[in-house]
Formats: sequence, C-alpha cells, structure tokens
Amino acid sequence: MALHAAGRQSLVDSVVDQLRAQLAAGEWGVGDRLPTEHALAEVLQVGRNTVREAVRVLVHAGMLRSRQGEGTFVVSVTDPASALRAVQRASIRDVLELRTALETEAARLAALRRGPADLERMRSALDAQRQLGREGGPGAEDMELYADHDVEFHRAVVDAARNSALTALYDWFAGSVREALVTALADREMARVNHADHRVLLDAIACGDPAAAEAAARNLLEGPLRQVEELLAEE
Amino acid sequence: MALHAAGRQSLVDSVVDQLRAQLAAGEWGVGDRLPTEHALAEVLQVGRNTVREAVRVLVHAGMLRSRQGEGTFVVSVTDPASALRAVQRASIRDVLELRTALETEAARLAALRRGPADLERMRSALDAQRQLGREGGPGAEDMELYADHDVEFHRAVVDAARNSALTALYDWFAGSVREALVTALADREMARVNHADHRVLLDAIACGDPAAAEAAARNLLEGPLRQVEELLAEE
Repeated sequence: MALHAAGRQSLVDSVVDQLRAQLAAGEWGVGDRLPTEHALAEVLQVGRNTVREAVRVLVHAGMLRSRQGEGTFVVSVTDPASALRAVQRASIRDVLELRTALETEAARLAALRRGPADLERMRSALDAQRQLGREGGPGAEDMELYADHDVEFHRAVVDAARNSALTALYDWFAGSVREALVTALADREMARVNHADHRVLLDAIACGDPAAAEAAARNLLEGPLRQVEELLAEE
Repeated sequence: MALHAAGRQSLVDSVVDQLRAQLAAGEWGVGDRLPTEHALAEVLQVGRNTVREAVRVLVHAGMLRSRQGEGTFVVSVTDPASALRAVQRASIRDVLELRTALETEAARLAALRRGPADLERMRSALDAQRQLGREGGPGAEDMELYADHDVEFHRAVVDAARNSALTALYDWFAGSVREALVTALADREMARVNHADHRVLLDAIACGDPAAAEAAARNLLEGPLRQVEELLAEE
C-alpha cells in the first residue's frame, strides 16, 4: 500500500513535469483550452485520476485555471515557483542589485504618493530598529527581530508607491531579502545597517522629493554591494 | 464515482488552502519541518492520502520541499502564484512602472557587462521589428510578432545585466509585458513603439555608458506612461 502510494505519487509528478514542459515549449498558449482529461489520459497513457491530480497541481501553481463546465485554460506558460527558486538560488550580489531596481523606483514613486500613515509606518520601523541596535548593532538574540524591522521599513516604502504590481513582487521577494539580511548580519565582515542613511531616505520621501528619494535608496544599497564585490574579489 | 472524485478533489483543495493560510500566518517559518503526514491528517481530520496530495501541490507551488527520509520543510511562506496573479491583475500603469524599475537598472548593468553576442541579439530584434513596422506601425496581422520582437529586445537587455535574479523575474514577468503591449498596439490612442529611442538605448549599452543607458531606458517607458496617465485622467 505504501509502495503503491509512492509509485502513484511519482507518476503524478512526471505528468506534472510533462505538462509543464509542453507549456514551456508553446504547445498551448495563454488563454488556450487544454485537451479534456480523457484525451490527455489517452495521449499520456495514464489514468484520468492521475491527469486530474496533475492538473490540480498546475492550477495551484498558477499556470492553469479550471472553469466549471468549460474546461481547463492556460493562465501562464512559465512557472512562478521556478522564478522564485531561481531568485532564492541567486547570489547576494544579484539579490542586492534586484533590490536596487525595485527600491529606487519605489522610493521615487513613494515621494510623489505617500500619505501620513506611510511616513508613520517608516518612522516606527526605524525607531524599533534603533532601539535594538543601540549598542553598535543587535546582539545575536535580536538579529531576526532586527531584520524584521529593516524589511518592514522597506516594505513601507514600497507600499507607499501605490503600485499593486510592485507591492506583490516585493512581498514575494521580501523572504529572500530577509534571509540575505540575516546572513549578512551574522557575518562580522559585513557592515551594520546604517541608520543615518535610512533617515535620509525617509526625509526625502516626507519632503516629496523623488530625485533625492531615488538617490537615497540607491545609496543605502551601494555600501553593501561594494562590500560584497570586494569580498568576492578577495576569494 | 464521479461525485466521489469531485468531493475528494475539493477536500484536497481545502487542505491546500488551510496549509497555505497556516504558512502565511507564520505557524511554520522558512526552514521549519512540517508535522508528519500522520499528525497533519489527525489535526485536519482528513485521510493521509489527502494530506499527501495537498503537500504535493505545495511542493510544486514552491512553498514546501520534501527530503527523502527527513520530512517536509518550508521553503517559502508566500505563494509565488498569488504574486503572479496580482501582477496579472495590475493596471497598465502599474505594469509600466514595474518595467521601469527592472529595465532602468538592467540597462545600467548591461552597459557595464554586455558582450558582443548581447549587442547582436538586441540589434537583430530591433531590425526584425523595424522590418514589420516599416509603414508606420505593424498591420493587425503582425501585431503579435511585433510584440514578440519588442519583448525579445528588452529580454536581451535584461540578460546582458548578468543577474540571475533579475533574469528569472523578468522572464516570468515577460508574459504580462507582452500582453500589455499587444493591448496597447491594438489601441489606436496609444503611440507606436519608437525605434529611434530603442536605438539610443542600444548605443548607450554598446558604448558602455551606464548613466546614458539608464536614462534611455527610462525615456523609452516615460512616453507610454504619460499617455496612460492622460487617458486615465480623461475618464
């Protein structure tokens, strides 16, 4: 019974992989209707239950959508999960550069669109972080919390840009940002988070100066980026 | 039988939703091990097969990972598919601003890192597009192809930045970019793609001038952004 279940599980996985490969190869495009369960089962030489489970996996993965009585349609031919895995495997340098891309533009837009509640949220996050870092950086026991406050500050900036696509992407990306930050905090060769620089960004956003906000956001990430490049060059 | 299968299907979906909600609520963090199949089945009051199928869905969704003999671990507490759905639902303005974020930074890095093959790829895409647009824009029958060449040019710029995180994100995002572009091309109120502006970006990257490349990339997207804002203001 256990063996049977395991065998069936890997069969579903291989049908998932096959359908994913067919989607990537352009066999069906966005908006197209997939062949029926029955037809797929015949072509792939598997049972209809296996096809149904594989389709379910791809519906939850955001690649297919099932409409009651109409069939199954293609929503995306690329797999969001594989993009996430690639970002998670990316080097710290790559993640810092991606942060620069998203955060400099977010800072510019935030300076044009922020409201009082956004500024309050940024201030609270910085205050909470300063509290923890009072004596030249957080102790080992506070690092996770320290990273949380930092990520919270940057999310507040991104949310203040009032752009649902940017917010969705950054929310999803924030996990990688936080992980890279905890790693950097634990690494004694990496500098601490610089509070004065964060305050400059907050002030530029509060004053409604998009160019200054963009420059301040870039400046925040340029320090760690230079450090990473120097450490990489030493290796 | 059909009824039974349908009932079972929705049970798996509801266990998937429940686990997803528990992950979002922080019940387990990244790196944590999930309770055993047996324990989950007991807590959720469902069969072990249902738990196994739900876990499979979340493994493929990029939220969990199963390690042979060790158990199931949390990879991400946010769902990449829901980020994709949010980006797909975002307005054209939001998508253009996100493109600006990713493409201006990519252009800057491309000017520093591009090789001859990158420049060749950009040139081919622009030449192919000009071919189609010779008489003041593509005909209705060529629009899809025209959009493909445009997306190919911008992907070549992003790839030339040599950043795996940026490339993964843009690949995944390119579907939304292409869709927005086809919509804009079909809309007579939106201006055509400007070839001279694309050429300016290519030249800046070829010359290795990051500031000029960044400005050219921003300029390319500022026209359509202004237009969208004007059209929105009219409504």
